[in-house]
Parts: sequence; structure tokens; C-alpha cells
Amino acid sequence: MSDTPDNVVRAYIDEHRAAFLGDLADWLRIPSVSADPARAGDVRRSADWLAAKLTETGFPVVEVWETGDGAGAPAVFAEWPSGADGAPTVLVYGHHDVQPAAREDGWHTDPFEPTTVDGRLYARGAADDKGQVFFHTLGVRAHLAATGRTAPAVNLKLLIEGEEESGSPNFPALVQARAERLACDMVIVSDTGMWAEDTPTVCTGMRGLTDCQIDLYGPDQDLHSGSFGGAVPNPATEAARLAAALHDDDRRVAIPGFYDGVVELTDAERELFAELPFDEKRWLRAAHSHAALGESGFSTLERVWARPTAEVNGIGGGYQGPGGKTIVPSTAQLKLSFRLVAGQDTDRVQQSVRAWVAARLPEGIRHEVTFWGATRPCLTPLDHPALQSVVRAMGRAFGQKIRFTREGGSGPAADLQDVLGVPVLFLGISVPSDGWHAPNEKVELDLLMKGVETAAHLWGDLAQNAPAR
Amino acid sequence: MSDTPDNVVRAYIDEHRAAFLGDLADWLRIPSVSADPARAGDVRRSADWLAAKLTETGFPVVEVWETGDGAGAPAVFAEWPSGADGAPTVLVYGHHDVQPAAREDGWHTDPFEPTTVDGRLYARGAADDKGQVFFHTLGVRAHLAATGRTAPAVNLKLLIEGEEESGSPNFPALVQARAERLACDMVIVSDTGMWAEDTPTVCTGMRGLTDCQIDLYGPDQDLHSGSFGGAVPNPATEAARLAAALHDDDRRVAIPGFYDGVVELTDAERELFAELPFDEKRWLRAAHSHAALGESGFSTLERVWARPTAEVNGIGGGYQGPGGKTIVPSTAQLKLSFRLVAGQDTDRVQQSVRAWVAARLPEGIRHEVTFWGATRPCLTPLDHPALQSVVRAMGRAFGQKIRFTREGGSGPAADLQDVLGVPVLFLGISVPSDGWHAPNEKVELDLLMKGVETAAHLWGDLAQNAPAR
Repeated sequence: MSDTPDNVVRAYIDEHRAAFLGDLADWLRIPSVSADPARAGDVRRSADWLAAKLTETGFPVVEVWETGDGAGAPAVFAEWPSGADGAPTVLVYGHHDVQPAAREDGWHTDPFEPTTVDGRLYARGAADDKGQVFFHTLGVRAHLAATGRTAPAVNLKLLIEGEEESGSPNFPALVQARAERLACDMVIVSDTGMWAEDTPTVCTGMRGLTDCQIDLYGPDQDLHSGSFGGAVPNPATEAARLAAALHDDDRRVAIPGFYDGVVELTDAERELFAELPFDEKRWLRAAHSHAALGESGFSTLERVWARPTAEVNGIGGGYQGPGGKTIVPSTAQLKLSFRLVAGQDTDRVQQSVRAWVAARLPEGIRHEVTFWGATRPCLTPLDHPALQSVVRAMGRAFGQKIRFTREGGSGPAADLQDVLGVPVLFLGISVPSDGWHAPNEKVELDLLMKGVETAAHLWGDLAQNAPAR
Repeated sequence: MSDTPDNVVRAYIDEHRAAFLGDLADWLRIPSVSADPARAGDVRRSADWLAAKLTETGFPVVEVWETGDGAGAPAVFAEWPSGADGAPTVLVYGHHDVQPAAREDGWHTDPFEPTTVDGRLYARGAADDKGQVFFHTLGVRAHLAATGRTAPAVNLKLLIEGEEESGSPNFPALVQARAERLACDMVIVSDTGMWAEDTPTVCTGMRGLTDCQIDLYGPDQDLHSGSFGGAVPNPATEAARLAAALHDDDRRVAIPGFYDGVVELTDAERELFAELPFDEKRWLRAAHSHAALGESGFSTLERVWARPTAEVNGIGGGYQGPGGKTIVPSTAQLKLSFRLVAGQDTDRVQQSVRAWVAARLPEGIRHEVTFWGATRPCLTPLDHPALQSVVRAMGRAFGQKIRFTREGGSGPAADLQDVLGVPVLFLGISVPSDGWHAPNEKVELDLLMKGVETAAHLWGDLAQNAPAR
């Protein structure tokens, strides 16, 4: 084995693998379930454990940050300046809290006693997200070992929050308040996954989200449908007409202005999506669905990853008990969510929805529209230098072509993007079979070590190819 | 006052008015609430009381009929043959059970202690329906007094059921089982009302009804709308699309075949409706509604009385709790009712609905349609001889032009029409202010006595102008 940088990295990782996995197991034993108030002490213990480990790793600055004026779960911040001129600043995002888990949910082993079987490490948080946070600790050490540096090639910052599994209620405020300390040239999110074990991929974006409730008020009380039906506006009918008018016959969202600014898929991106070994029958099984249906002219992956959508999350009005009741209902309600893609502005989408609702309701129906929140979309262009660095680093680790995916969901990464005003990149090695939020969550140890290896290669590549702005 | 038949009738009624009202008050004191199992004994006592009173009135045949194999509330049947050749047989329908009522609901007086104030008799059942049943007892006696007969000019039958306020669950079976005893040339329903105190009217028809539930099944479980939304069929969206497709932009029912056979309003009928002193603002107040909306090209009265309609009684699917939940729901449900007019066949309407649902749903949505029941419409042509008799009899009693209305609702009268195969006519003197099913139900004593007078005139007119077929 020749002494190339890649081989030095591999040798270093092999040497420290056992200790790394032992440490990770210690962390995984802490049941840092943020949703369970009884586990608040464990979440704090998890933050303290990580802070100590980052200090041991070499980060000169390590702090535990309180959130929500002390009522939220603590986040861990760490910083390791490069010392080199013109070095870019990179902020790694992840979380140290985990989903609830109990043996009786169907776990074959204790979810908080990490167990390795056939190269898989089973534990709550193994993949989501402790494993993927932790590969950065050995990664940066391997980077130093291979380059002979005493500090990373980039100014490295870490922000590992403690409430992601509870919806990150205090995260936007934290980022706002600490924006100066968090200032960076880019964010690397290590809280996503790849297409499959044999298909390493990098995620290039997440969709945004805004959701609302529409309350419709018709008659002041339920009416006898014989005496009044067919002669007064029915709010259940109007709720249905609104929901039905969300999409045209091509299942395209029919709200005027909704698509304004949408960054369309390029032919190159569509070709890249099409290269993925997508099996629609298998996907439908995972979707517990019996057919695919969506916007005409787009594939299933394109619909989920790269197209904005409107979804009826709930509809209700009138009598819903057993049997029949011949009334004209007094009220009805609609819950809608909109997934957004790059180029869409959440405020403008909300305005479009409000105008569309107001324009479609007949006289005699009063309405209220309440938006619950908004998360902006994020998307990294395929030719972005930092994305190319991630692809190269993964390519060196995996020895395979790296393909591209996106995420249909929405996440707190967008808060970092918006507040800090920087691009968000994704580096994750988890695979769909890892069972996030499910019993028997695991991480593939080989992939986890590829994550370490990727992290080891990434900082040098970024320093060289994506310097500070 | 000359000794015309009308004056004889009036004098007879005046003479017996006090005793008649005293008897009615006795009957109203019996709280024959069919919906309350604890009142079953009172419902039976009410039937027995009426049976005794009909015997006292002179009916040679009076029977209390059990329903539902003894589990239902008893009906009262009475028969008084005319003895005259070619006399038509008339069956009067009404009910002796009442809606629940309690002082604390807002009654100013005890609902079961009849109280007369300013010519109004307040009591539960005063108008719906004991008062309107009872005017036939004094009516037939006045008829005999004025004509010198010892038996009515028609073969008179009465069927007074005891479960109308509970949805007449055993009534169709009773009519089926007793069809031979109930055989007649026409039915007179005394369980409706008039337009207003100063506008006597006769109702010429009721709408039919059939209602159903449509269950839609999409994904086998609720899905994450970020991962799957916009790419699989959503049953809540499909329920909404069905409900929205019920009506076209003219609010005409858009189910193919729905209007097949509909007996259209004649110009004469539309003119008669238009003659009624209809105040839409007042109607909207009664409808607790803030605008009128319905089938283009028809007035509110036409929509409610003479046009078939489709109504969303209930819709439900997905998340309906507080706040938002970004899911694609697994199931959704729609409850629809259809009001039908003469010429529409309930079976064909049900088939049309089933075919329409099946044709509109996309692949991946499974559905079930369950119809709860069907009541046929009934309509008497304006030139029907028996209807003309009712109009003449009312005209003599009221000394005013009698106008025409219809009923938007649906009732057990249709069962009599269908099983016995005869036309149904309506004779009622109640007015909208009587407050059926509400606190402080009352009957206008002057109108009640007009009902007696109408009944006194009707049998002779029918015998002369609408002889047995």
C-alpha cells in the first residue's frame, strides 16, 4: 500500500476505529429523548458528553448553549480556527437528541445498549443523528494526520442541537441570537442519507414548507337539508370546492402565482435523477400506496424532490358519525400544506393562497386563513464549488461515482441558510434501511467509516476549491 | 245568519268548541315522546286515549295496532264506512307522538300543561301533530250535522302513527303488513302547514330523499407529506374533488342521469309560487344564512320545493385537530343526500351516483358507497280533482283564495303513496311561527277551528267530485 494521502487517511481510521466505535457506543447509551420531559437530564448529559469529546478531539472552543432561556434543550457549539489565510469557514449542523424508543415497540435489542450484528450497529440514534455527527470527530483527526496540519484547513464550526426530534422549537431564535458566532461561508448538514448501500449520493436540496388552516362559516347553525338544502351556501361543499380547485386536471397546482419564481429542473438534473436505480413498485410499497399520481410531465422522484406541491392534510365539516344526517352544516375546515422549491417565496405563496381563497368563495361564506409557519427551501446548484468538493471527497471515500438526490421534506437547515445567508450542503451516509424513527434503527459500520473518510478529505478540498468569499 | 250548510257547520263548531279544546288539552297532557324510552307508557296511553275518543266520535271500527312486533310504538287505526255506493275511500294520516320538551329548554309554560294566551294554545304537540289530527274528530261530526247523514260521505279511515318523531322506523313495515285494511283512493296527510296566518295554502308535494356515505381508501397508513405528498393519490383530495364535482358552475347537479325523468315546473306553477308574499331577507334569517345560493334559473322557493338537489351533509379525512400535521391521509369519507322530485326514480338515482363515483376516482383510491335509505317524492298535479276538493273546502273555511306550496322535506307519506298506490294530499293549518320541535310550540286557535271547518266540508266535496276509481 503506497503512502498516498488517501491511504494515510484509511490507515489512521483503521487504527482508531475501535476506540471511535467504543466512544460512539458510550454516547448512544445516553437516552437523549428530547420529546420526553423525564429525559431532559439525559439530553443535557448528552450535550455535556459531546462537549467533552470535542474538547478531547482538539476543538479549542467548545460551549454548551442554552436555548429557550434555559427551558429548551442545550445545543453544543465548537470552533477550531484554521489559522490559514483565506480559509473558508464551514459550519457543520447535526443534532444530539433522539426519537423515543422502547424495547416493547419491537426492538430486538435494548435501543440504548448499542449492539453490533453482521457489521450493523443497532441503537436509537445510530444513524439519526449521533453516528453522523460523530464521524466528524475522527474525520477531522484523520484530516490532520494525513496533512500534517495542527489545525483544520478550514475554520471549522459545529452546531449540534438538542431539539431536532421535537421540531426544533428554539432553533430559529438560537441561530438569530448567535448569528455572529455562527457566521460562515457554508453549512454542511450531516443529518440526511444516501440513495442506497451500493449507490452513494449527495443531497442537493430540501423543499420548503408552509401550511395553513382554512375555516369556513356558512349558516349560523346546522340546517335541515330538506327545508334549506340547495338554496343556501354549504361550507362543506365550499371547502371541497376549494380543495378540488387546488389542482387542475394535470394535477398541477392551480393557485394563481404559486409557481412564480420556481427554479425549474435542468435537463442535466433530470438525467441525473433518471440514472438512479428507481423501482416504482418498490417505492409504492414504501409509500403504502396503490398507484402513483402527481403533476403531469414529471417522474415520481421529480415530483417528490423538485416540484412544489399542495396537499390536503385534513378536511372536515358537518356530520361524521355513523349513518346519515340530512343537514347543511354550519362550518367546515381545511388543512393544507405546500411544499416549496427554490425560487418560491414563502410570503408570496401565503399571499397567493389567501387571495385565491378569498376569490373563490361565494357570498354567504365567511372565511379565515391561518398559516402555521414557513420553512424556506434550499437548493445547491450542481456546479457549486463546495458541492463539487463534497462529491470529490465522497468519491475518494467510496471509490464509486457519486450521484445526486434531493429531500422532499423540509428541515431546520433552511433557518441556517436564511439567517446566515449562506448555501447549505448535505453530507450523510445513512440509507433508507437504517429505520429512522422506527424500531431497530441501525447504521452500517462500513458506511459510517466512509463518512469518517469523506470528512477527512473534505476540509482540504474545500480550502482549495471553495475559498472564503 | 242564514241556514246555509256553511253556517250550520260554523254553528255546530262554535257549539262544541269548548268541549273540543278541553279534550285536546287532555290529550296534550300525555307526554307521548317516542324518542324517550322512559315515555313508552305515555305513548301507549296516548294511543289508547285517541282510540277511546275516536270510538266516542262514532267510528265503528277502532283498533290499536302494535308495530315492530310489539317493540315499536302503537298506531291507531279507525274506520267509518260511508254506506253510500261509489263513495271514495279516504285515509287520513297523522301521528300522536311528540318531540321531547322540557321547561328548562326555554318554555315559558309547562310544555305538557296546555296554556291558552291571546288565542294561542301552547303545548308540545299543539301543532305537530295532535292539534291537526284532532280537528278531524270535530270535523266529521260537523259534516254529519250539516248534511244530516249518520255516516260520512266517504269511507273514512284514520291511521295515526306513534313513531313519526323518531323517524317512523316501523311504519313502512306496518303499511306493508296492513295494506289491505289501509286500501283507499287517496291519502290526506294532516301533518304539514300553510304559508302564513294570512295566506292559507295547500301543499301539493314533498321531495323524496336518498342519502349515502362514500368511503375512500388511499395509502394504507397516513404518510409524511414531504416524502410522499404530490406523488400518490390523496383520499381527502379525492373526496373533495367528488364533492366539488357534485355541482357545475351553475350549481346544477352534475351527476350524469340525475335529472332523468324530472317533472319540470310548469309556467302556471311558477306563477303560483311567485304570487306568494316571499321575503328573501326574512327567509334568510329563518335559514340562519347570509346569502342565497342554488341552481341557476330558479328562485329560492323553486329550489327548495320543486328542484332536486345534492347536498354535502358531512366530509372528513386526515388531521382535524388543532394546528397542522403534514400528512397524506389514509382515508376520507363523504356523506351526501339527494332530495328528489316527481319523476325521479330512487333506484336509478342511486345507480347514477354509484357510476359517477366509480368513474371519477383515480387508480390507487379504493371506494365503497353505502346508501342508507330512500323515500320517494310525491306530487299532486294542480288539476287533480281531489286537490280541487281540498282547495274548495279550505276556501269555504277561510273565505280567502287558497294558494299552493310544496314541502322541501321528505316524509312517511311517500310510503303510503307507494305501498297503497294512491295520490297523497295535504291538509294542514299550522304556520311557520308555530315552532315545531322548538320551545313554546303553539297552535293558533282560529286556524285550528278553520281546520275543523275544512274537514267538515271536505268529505262531501270529495264524494261528489272525486268518486272511487
